Amino acid sequence: MPNTKQILALNRFDERDAADLDAELESLFARRQAAFGASSVLFYQRPIRMVRAEGVWMFDADGRKYLDVYNNVASVGHCHPRVVKAIAKQAATLNTNTRYLYDNIHDYAERLLKTYPARLSNIVFTCTGSESNDLALRLTKSFTGGSGFIVTETAYHGNTEAVTAVSPSSFKTRSVPPHVRTVPAPDHYRHPTNDLGARFAEDVANAIADLERNGVKFGGLLVDSIFSSDGIYTDPPGFLKQAVDTVHAAGGLFISDEVQPGFGRTGSGMWGFERHGIEPDIVTMGKPMGNGFPVAGVVTRPEILDSLCETTGYFNTFGGNPVAAAAGLAVLDVIEDEGLIENAKEVGRYFRAELHELKGRHPGIGDIRGAGLFIGIEFSLPGTNEPDPATASYLINALKERGILIGAAGAYGNVLKVRPPLCFARDNADFFIETLNAVLRDRPAGSAELVSLQQQAHHGPKGPKTRG
Amino acid sequence: MPNTKQILALNRFDERDAADLDAELESLFARRQAAFGASSVLFYQRPIRMVRAEGVWMFDADGRKYLDVYNNVASVGHCHPRVVKAIAKQAATLNTNTRYLYDNIHDYAERLLKTYPARLSNIVFTCTGSESNDLALRLTKSFTGGSGFIVTETAYHGNTEAVTAVSPSSFKTRSVPPHVRTVPAPDHYRHPTNDLGARFAEDVANAIADLERNGVKFGGLLVDSIFSSDGIYTDPPGFLKQAVDTVHAAGGLFISDEVQPGFGRTGSGMWGFERHGIEPDIVTMGKPMGNGFPVAGVVTRPEILDSLCETTGYFNTFGGNPVAAAAGLAVLDVIEDEGLIENAKEVGRYFRAELHELKGRHPGIGDIRGAGLFIGIEFSLPGTNEPDPATASYLINALKERGILIGAAGAYGNVLKVRPPLCFARDNADFFIETLNAVLRDRPAGSAELVSLQQQAHHGPKGPKTRG
Repeated sequence: MPNTKQILALNRFDERDAADLDAELESLFARRQAAFGASSVLFYQRPIRMVRAEGVWMFDADGRKYLDVYNNVASVGHCHPRVVKAIAKQAATLNTNTRYLYDNIHDYAERLLKTYPARLSNIVFTCTGSESNDLALRLTKSFTGGSGFIVTETAYHGNTEAVTAVSPSSFKTRSVPPHVRTVPAPDHYRHPTNDLGARFAEDVANAIADLERNGVKFGGLLVDSIFSSDGIYTDPPGFLKQAVDTVHAAGGLFISDEVQPGFGRTGSGMWGFERHGIEPDIVTMGKPMGNGFPVAGVVTRPEILDSLCETTGYFNTFGGNPVAAAAGLAVLDVIEDEGLIENAKEVGRYFRAELHELKGRHPGIGDIRGAGLFIGIEFSLPGTNEPDPATASYLINALKERGILIGAAGAYGNVLKVRPPLCFARDNADFFIETLNAVLRDRPAGSAELVSLQQQAHHGPKGPKTRG
Repeated sequence: MPNTKQILALNRFDERDAADLDAELESLFARRQAAFGASSVLFYQRPIRMVRAEGVWMFDADGRKYLDVYNNVASVGHCHPRVVKAIAKQAATLNTNTRYLYDNIHDYAERLLKTYPARLSNIVFTCTGSESNDLALRLTKSFTGGSGFIVTETAYHGNTEAVTAVSPSSFKTRSVPPHVRTVPAPDHYRHPTNDLGARFAEDVANAIADLERNGVKFGGLLVDSIFSSDGIYTDPPGFLKQAVDTVHAAGGLFISDEVQPGFGRTGSGMWGFERHGIEPDIVTMGKPMGNGFPVAGVVTRPEILDSLCETTGYFNTFGGNPVAAAAGLAVLDVIEDEGLIENAKEVGRYFRAELHELKGRHPGIGDIRGAGLFIGIEFSLPGTNEPDPATASYLINALKERGILIGAAGAYGNVLKVRPPLCFARDNADFFIETLNAVLRDRPAGSAELVSLQQQAHHGPKGPKTRG
């Protein structure tokens, strides 16, 4: 049995392999390394030089075409002409901040708020999901007086200081700070249970008790309802309800991070929390909101926003500027006019059915999970449920060589994360299924071990890791 | 003598005045209030409904034209066609994240880094000045092991939880947290001294000693070298050097927040720190970088970036995406091709000379300070140096009625903040001077007291305040 904690996903480029690149890539990489230094992270064992993208396709400098199964930023399709046009037109007309009045930000705010439960009637615009989650933590603290937060073990919620503290997947060496408790992901594959909701709620209750026992007043539970970085745990719908009740009973708030599941991705309504029949106290939005334009936001009840604004001003210069609003409105138009929620539902259902069929043919596929167009394909050592990150890494790089871009998730990096633009079609799913089937079928015997051993010989036992 | 702490700048719209608006504005305001709630802040006693902008001009829904003397976001001019074109073209071609290789982010990184001292050779792209300062605080902590920070008394550095803690101007009721110390702004007008540098350095040394006495290891000094929100203190050039030496001697880092002075605004080079002959350890960039497109960044030495990346991953999805890079490159092109740094220097010098002349005619003008196109006009009660925020507020609203947009800064809100787009021309300065002269000349006797008393009668002694 491999030490799964040591075999990390090898789906990033390692700078020690730079000499293996062709001259042009090597030169670009050298420039990159000089400027970006330690913060430079590139996808794939052999990085891609991208030049353009359109719909579900991306194109590299050699004219190679890739099916993008990775992206929830270009959520309505890369370079969608309606979004591009809206940005170009508004950027040429007016781009200022929300301390002047202008119409489109109000149109946008109202259209977004209409998609929420009535009590969630205030919105604050920010620029990134990180800024949104940072603000959500502050809102929770000011409203509850509690500073203790609960997240899942492999959560990722963003990159500010406060949000990194509740993002254990960002930690390379440190552990969670004293005001944070982690609960296991709602993993019914590796840890089966008859009542996932009760178990998850019990874990949350224990974490609350542990915080309070250590003198930290409980503030809130922050999860993305699709548990993206934990490895995609979507079912059964509704399993979050009991945990949310537990949070409320303890005087805390439930923050729904919709950066991953939001904007129709789950195929059942606009927001991930809808699948669970719950009403969050705070909702945070990010990536897909502007299809690549940096716009994000926080939605909450007025009394929660009031509690922060009584003591501290909040202003975000770029947040909700007219170009952000134009991009955001165009995204809502496209979701509606192109029926993307319905598409996510239909294509997602078809895709999962085909993947289940594939699972029957390849014993390495341990589990298929997901909702709409967010699907996890978990790889285990055949005949067990032991995580198999080496296979996931092999596949990520092999699929890329055959024109498919995909990443991995989960504590072990052994879950392929299927998260394409929402305009993904059945024939795109077919191409993915055929290619994955071929890669699994044609894989040289022992190649997983080979990849792993090569990397270990080259770089030592702890390979590089990328969070997707 | 007025209680200056009570007479706050009245340059924002107060919701209790909504009934005084015309029907259209009132309706828009009602929609805004419903959606934005407590976080809604609007400029001016009577807000403006903006519809377009171009160069140094903004236009409202009634076709009225305003000279923008406020804006450092649209720093190379509102809706600059080269920036708009670059954004539109790139948004239609490719917009993804920096985990793929693409050329323009490297061109951009290298062009920016060339403007810095050689040792500052690493850059991290973010989306906002807040994200940049948040990262700067984390870099400082990881490199020095110290968590104590020093800022000026009315500093503003951004809106995340960590950055709000070092932004006393955001506090409505709370005081700075235990890991933060404030030093007085380098105010040589109200508190004259023969050696401003020595005094500021002594204040910093005392703050460091106080932190350490209280068991907080010193991390760094964070200032914007133009002391924008403190009231604009630019002279004499070089006065920061001694404080920076003090910081380094104590093992701390100096963080230069270039969100306000950067990108040529001071008229002497690209960066505010250049006027002081100092080399920061970390530089943060924001607002003017993309002329309204949300792009920002942090520049530092590799060993500082390494120290954070050893323990914690940092990735910013939108940071440095191809559209951000295209916008940023276009801004650099415009600064260069239109000679905007030279323009800031020349027009700024002319502008200040004219303002000094005006000061001779109006005893309420207490002081004129500034560098390039960042100028402070401080108002004092005639014959004293007592702050006169009522006059500043009167002027902000009266200038707006005559077609000029301006804000206020400083602990008392009594400093008009002249910060126009860098394409500001001599005749724009002339228009401002003539209009300010006319407003001061035509002002009804006792109008400041009138404004103040009206507001007090209407709203109580503590009026609303806006940070510019």
